[in-house]
This record gives sequence, structure tokens and C-alpha cells, in this order.
Amino acid sequence: MNVYIAGVATTPFGELWDVSPRSLANDVVNRAIRDAGIEKNNIEALFVGNMLSGMLGRQEHLGAFFSDSLGMHVPAFKVEGACASGGLAAHMAILSVLSGQYTTVCVLGVEKMTDHKPEDVSAALAGAGSDEERMSGATFPALYALLARVHMHRFGTTQEQLASVAVKNHFHASMNPNAQFKNLLTVEKVLQSSMVADPLHLLDCSPISDGASAVIITSKPSHPIHAIQVLASSVATDTLDIARRSSLDELRATRIAAKKAYTQAGILPKDIQVLEVHDCFTIAEILAMEDLGIYEKGKAAKAIEEGKTRLDGDFDRVVNSSGGLKGCGHPVGATGVKQLVEIVEQLRRSAGKRQVPNARYGLTHNVGGSGATAVVHILCTNRQ
Amino acid sequence: MNVYIAGVATTPFGELWDVSPRSLANDVVNRAIRDAGIEKNNIEALFVGNMLSGMLGRQEHLGAFFSDSLGMHVPAFKVEGACASGGLAAHMAILSVLSGQYTTVCVLGVEKMTDHKPEDVSAALAGAGSDEERMSGATFPALYALLARVHMHRFGTTQEQLASVAVKNHFHASMNPNAQFKNLLTVEKVLQSSMVADPLHLLDCSPISDGASAVIITSKPSHPIHAIQVLASSVATDTLDIARRSSLDELRATRIAAKKAYTQAGILPKDIQVLEVHDCFTIAEILAMEDLGIYEKGKAAKAIEEGKTRLDGDFDRVVNSSGGLKGCGHPVGATGVKQLVEIVEQLRRSAGKRQVPNARYGLTHNVGGSGATAVVHILCTNRQ
Repeated sequence: MNVYIAGVATTPFGELWDVSPRSLANDVVNRAIRDAGIEKNNIEALFVGNMLSGMLGRQEHLGAFFSDSLGMHVPAFKVEGACASGGLAAHMAILSVLSGQYTTVCVLGVEKMTDHKPEDVSAALAGAGSDEERMSGATFPALYALLARVHMHRFGTTQEQLASVAVKNHFHASMNPNAQFKNLLTVEKVLQSSMVADPLHLLDCSPISDGASAVIITSKPSHPIHAIQVLASSVATDTLDIARRSSLDELRATRIAAKKAYTQAGILPKDIQVLEVHDCFTIAEILAMEDLGIYEKGKAAKAIEEGKTRLDGDFDRVVNSSGGLKGCGHPVGATGVKQLVEIVEQLRRSAGKRQVPNARYGLTHNVGGSGATAVVHILCTNRQ
Repeated sequence: MNVYIAGVATTPFGELWDVSPRSLANDVVNRAIRDAGIEKNNIEALFVGNMLSGMLGRQEHLGAFFSDSLGMHVPAFKVEGACASGGLAAHMAILSVLSGQYTTVCVLGVEKMTDHKPEDVSAALAGAGSDEERMSGATFPALYALLARVHMHRFGTTQEQLASVAVKNHFHASMNPNAQFKNLLTVEKVLQSSMVADPLHLLDCSPISDGASAVIITSKPSHPIHAIQVLASSVATDTLDIARRSSLDELRATRIAAKKAYTQAGILPKDIQVLEVHDCFTIAEILAMEDLGIYEKGKAAKAIEEGKTRLDGDFDRVVNSSGGLKGCGHPVGATGVKQLVEIVEQLRRSAGKRQVPNARYGLTHNVGGSGATAVVHILCTNRQ
């Protein structure tokens, strides 16, 4: 059985203080349904990707909550896996269609973060990591800073190369009307921003964001040409804390999920023209490009610095055309779904100024915590 | 493709202050794996049913958390839907095997509630309901009390009949070594217990509990005779708050999920000999028996009072042989999984003193909130 993404929609990401989670969800789900050329009553189940509704919103019946507010009353599920919640919800939705029990389902990724006090949000986000790391005060920037230091030590990666990831992703975001940050950066500006966790400056870090994204997954698309085929959906996990990993110059969960995904899709890393990867920190994009097999270990930082993944000039492929988590924003439960929205737009050739020419294969890569969960999807257009 | 439950295990339910969630999970998962006659490395994915880890434990990466602590590092997911989290996790696991992507997976239901202050637990549990109900102070006992009043008014249901549900379930629990409450009750004792929300007394209410249960779902069981076939797995949702429902003498989500399940299984309600239903309050079991089609609307309370669902004397079928939520306990994320464990034990004829003779078909019924989510499974033994 083939499975397709038939409809997509996303809200702008950013500080959306004047919009409720219900309004965000209604907006994207209804637009995704229209985009798929179907009616609301064609949706047979709802998969909600969200991390923080319990801790920040004291709501822990989120599938029924949104199913109800959307006026659907279909089987509904909240799937949670920290910052990979959106990707995991999509994986579950795809398997549910492959099972034959559902034909057409909706994946909703949604997160509302900026209504809350920053210290509450930080404390809640620490819920993605291990108790031991939390008790020793290791925040996520601190953990990724350690990974960055290992990479710098082992491969000569520089702070300028880290900064070049943020510069590229803000450049892409400047062409994305839904992006949280549309301002252009320079390497100097990144290096001059305040230090958060050495060597990561403020502008090496993705922001706190609100937003929602939705995709319609189906085995029977109304418009086969318009629909984008899901060639692979794979998940892997690793230790919750980084202290017990055998290697700190990689995220092993990404490597395992990617290997499974390439096997499922029957393609190689070099076949992919457009990728949305999990750049929660600039070092994370460098690790992703290597662990996804796009570049050899230790070679990604230089390639990114040289513009090989940037949508202008002499690129080999384009990475994070949406602006990524850094430029487009990172409402945690929505991120994995937004990545699918962006790749579908690219493969449909409807990405506007951000369009990557002739993209045929696209990949999304969503990470939970400091790499304990990784989700990889590979999509393909049938048009020549 | 046929799907089976090949292995089961549960911890005792109760106030387990001296055991960590990790220990509970390790215990049941390892025993369920041994029960299935397989090795840990045969498990390809882990589905965790849990409601409160974020609000009470500040841990929101629970799939990876348990996958890691179990030493598995397989694809892992937390599925959440209030008190139906365990049933929803099982549904997802079953669909994932039907999809063909996984052959053998584990469902872990786990909840740790008694370590926390009762007021914190109550506040967290309110997260299963609607904001409007919460703001107006309608707790879960209050909502179910309203449903009980409607039933009493419309069908002449009595407080004695409500109490008879608790009496029966404690009787069953007295034969279950894993039950939280093994003491026998009388109708008088229930009616003399303190009033929580008129007409529901303290002994009409299920308790706050700790516990974990696990089942192994597979399409290729090692011991086909030992494995129990899953004939149906269905989910339905309704409005989050009861105020907007057209009828208060039923839980519509149960009716819809049950209808789908009977169709999937190709059997009728009368074919079922043993059921585990969601008796969070005594009225809930009466509603369940009617909404599942076992008795006509308005007839269940009398049948229960007359012992038609009690494992002694002249029963038509046996309901909540484990003791149910009332007698066995209600660690919310574990409940839906424990129901499957009990039905598997019954269909294997290994339920000891609680064994229902000649049971061939069994049903589980798990509810989230005040009926916004309902999950129904139908199981069958292949032995004659």
C-alpha cells in the first residue's frame, strides 16, 4: 500500500499571544483539509503531536480536546516524545493508515509556549532530558555545547562554521512568510551575541515559539499528482542522557533511523535534494548532516560554511529552506509536522521564493531531547 | 493478518511508595517478554500508556525514558488520552503490527500517583476534563454523580444498585493477589461510607493507585495456543465536557467504539463471557454494561444487583473479574493494559480462583475523562 501526504498547512511561527491553541489548530486543520480536496468528515482519526500541554496548560486529554474543538469526534491520540512529538505523531499516523484500519487521518502538531513565564518554560523543557542531567544543572544548551566542543576538538570545527548555520537559516527564513525571524544575520553578529553555553552564542540557539502545523495522511488521495508519497517513516532511540553514550561526535539515534529510512525508501543520501533537519542549536545541524549520511563525519561544517546547502549560488542540496528551527521557530510539538509541510511544498514546486529547483526526493529529521529520539521521513514526488 | 497478545504481566496495584516507575516497568516488561517465550531483543517498539508523568513527575520524554531504562533502545512512544492512555497505547501498538512495519512490540502502562500530595494528584487528574468544567469546580466525582442522578431519575436506579457494583468488584478483588483492596464489602458498608458527591459515596469511587502492566503484541507468536487473538481494537471520542452532550444516560463514545468493535470481530455482545469495564465510579460500570450492548438501556443495574455478572452462583457473564478499577485499583495509564492482562489470563484459563469457566470471547473497555474517549478491545482464544 502507498501512503501519501495529500494536504498541508502551517500557521506563522512566533510569539502568538493573541491566539489560543484551539484557534491555531482550527486554522491549520481546516486549511490542510481544503488543501487535500476533501471534507472534514473524511478524516477518520486525529494524531496530536504536543509536548507541554500537561506541564504548562494542565490539559492531559489533548486528542479528545482537539477532536472536540474541531467538531470531529473521531478517534484521537496525543503522541509525546519531547521535541520529536510532531514527528512521532506523523509516524503513528502513517502506520495507522498502513494498517488498513484508517484510510485518511490528520496529524496536528501544536505548541503554545510564549504565554508562560520563561523560567516555567525552561523547567518544562528540561522534562525532555534525564533526571540525572536535570539534577546536575545541565540544560539543553549546556548539553549541545558539550557536543559542539567534542566536534571542534575532533574535527577542527570552528565557531565561525557553527555561526554559518544560523546565517544560512535566517537567509532562508527571510524568504518564508511564516518564519519567526526574517532578519538576515552575519557570522560576526552571531559571534557578538551573548554567550549562552560556550561555544554556543544566543544566535546559535533556536527560539521559544508558538505555532501549529497539520498534514493529511491518506492511502487514497483525491488528487494523486498534488499528493506527495511517503517512502519511509522510521524512528530510533538512544540513552536519555549523553553521559552514557559511547560516542559524542554523533547522534546515534539519527544514524539508526536514517539507515532504516534509506532502506525503506530504496534510495541513497545523495539522491535527496531538499532536507529539513533538527537545528535546535547550530551544532545539531552539523551533526545531522553527517549522521544522515549526507557528508562524511567531520566534513559537514566546512560544506555548510562554503554554501553547499544554501539556496543561492553553487549548492549541492538545500537544507532547512523553511529557516529551520533557528529561523522559522521551534514550537516543539509542531516542529516535526512543519518539516513535513515544508518538504511537501518543495516537492510540489509551490515553495515560492524558497523553491529548490527540480526537487524529487526530500527528507525530514526530527529529534527529541539531546538525541534520545530521532524520527526520519523520506518523501517523493511522482511528477517528472 | 492476525494479531495476538503473546505475553502479559502486571504488578500488584496499590500504594507502592518504595518502588520507582523504572522498577515497576522493568518488572512487568521482563515478565511479559518471558511469558511470550521470546527475548528482549525480539521487541521492535515500545508503546507507553501514561497520563501524569509530565504534571507530577516533570518527565515528558517517557518513551525514550523507559526504552532506555529497559536497555532496549527501540522506537518508543508515549501515548496519552487521560485515563484511556493504556487502551490507546494498545490500539496504537496493534495498528503498528497490522501495518507490517513491526512484528513484535511491547505495550507498557504505568502510573505512579501516591508519591504525590493528594491535592496535586486531584489537580492533575482534572487535566482530563474541559477547562470550563474545571473552572466551574466540577470534579470527576461531581460529573459522574450527575450521570448517576440522571440514571436514577430516568430508570429508577437505586443507591443500593450502585453499591452492588462495588460489592461485586471487591468480591472479585478478594481473589486477585494483585488487587489493591481485598476486603469484602456489603451494600450497607458502601452506603455508610462518607458522601463524596451525592449519590456517590467514597466506596462508589475507584482509588488513587500505583502500578504497571505490560502486554506483548505480535503477528508471529512463539506459542500459538498460548497466544490470544485480538479480534477488534476500536476507539471513539465525544465532547470533552458533558454539558454539550445530547444525552446524559449514556456514554456515546462507548456505544460507537463498541459498535465498531463488534463489527470488526464479527460477533455479538451476547457471545462474550468475560469483560473488564471502566468502573471509575459504580455508575460507570452500569453505563458501560448498557452502552456495550450487554443489557438494554435501564436494565443493567438490576442485573448486576441480582448477581448476573458476579463470579458465583447464577451468572450470565462475569464483569471485572480482576476487581475492576474499584477493587483492583486505578493507576490511570496502567488500567487499560491491566484489563487486557486480565482477559488474556481468563481466555488462557490461568486466572486461578477467579477463572470464569469456558470463556472463549473477552472484551475490555477503557474510558478517558468523563467519556470523551472510549477504547474497546475484543479478544478470543483459539482453544475449544
